[in-house]
Amino acid sequence: MSENWLGAICWNNDGLVPVIAQDVVSNKVLMMAWMSRETLKLSVETGFAHYWSRSRNKIWKKGEESGHLQAIEEFLLDCDSDVLLIKVKQVGGVACHTGRESCFFRRYGHGEWEVISPVIKVMT
Amino acid sequence: MSENWLGAICWNNDGLVPVIAQDVVSNKVLMMAWMSRETLKLSVETGFAHYWSRSRNKIWKKGEESGHLQAIEEFLLDCDSDVLLIKVKQVGGVACHTGRESCFFRRYGHGEWEVISPVIKVMT
Repeated sequence: MSENWLGAICWNNDGLVPVIAQDVVSNKVLMMAWMSRETLKLSVETGFAHYWSRSRNKIWKKGEESGHLQAIEEFLLDCDSDVLLIKVKQVGGVACHTGRESCFFRRYGHGEWEVISPVIKVMT
Repeated sequence: MSENWLGAICWNNDGLVPVIAQDVVSNKVLMMAWMSRETLKLSVETGFAHYWSRSRNKIWKKGEESGHLQAIEEFLLDCDSDVLLIKVKQVGGVACHTGRESCFFRRYGHGEWEVISPVIKVMT
């Protein structure tokens, strides 16, 4: 199959694109991470989210250690072709390494970032 | 007021942080853009989204020309402190410069990006 759809994406200078993961059931924004050309292709082919870990500098299959895989239902591209949105079924209901549903668990208020979401699963 | 909350954010090498805007009513992810320290402060102080335009290299008050302002209800910070999520009331129901509700109007299918959302407002 032609890979024009990959070429349509505006990759940044590091060859990556930011990817927002949104839960298809709760509609919560779960996290943002980065994909390379290779990990996007892997994600499309397998149906499971594969990111590029910038800290570990390698392919990161989401949930490969925790079991909290993300099954992707939709891939969406924005108007500037430089951001992706994936709609996912989050296995275990936990996307964050802190054991919370979403990585966005701190809210600004009164000059501080306040934790507003509970830990669902204690991560070991 | 102390600005520790600004210092808590991990700004990238360009002094920016990616910001995801989500509609508080429809829960749709509308767009992703970037804020500088200054535009985040402006956003908190005014309650309206101010981004940093990387293409124009200046402050961009969202909707300043189109009227499609974003009134921010919540600012959320992720676990790594390097991504923000804002929950907004989207004035006019249109976030995208193409006149669509969301910038994510193309979906991957059969090796192509297919337009799946209608233009709500013809932009001049």
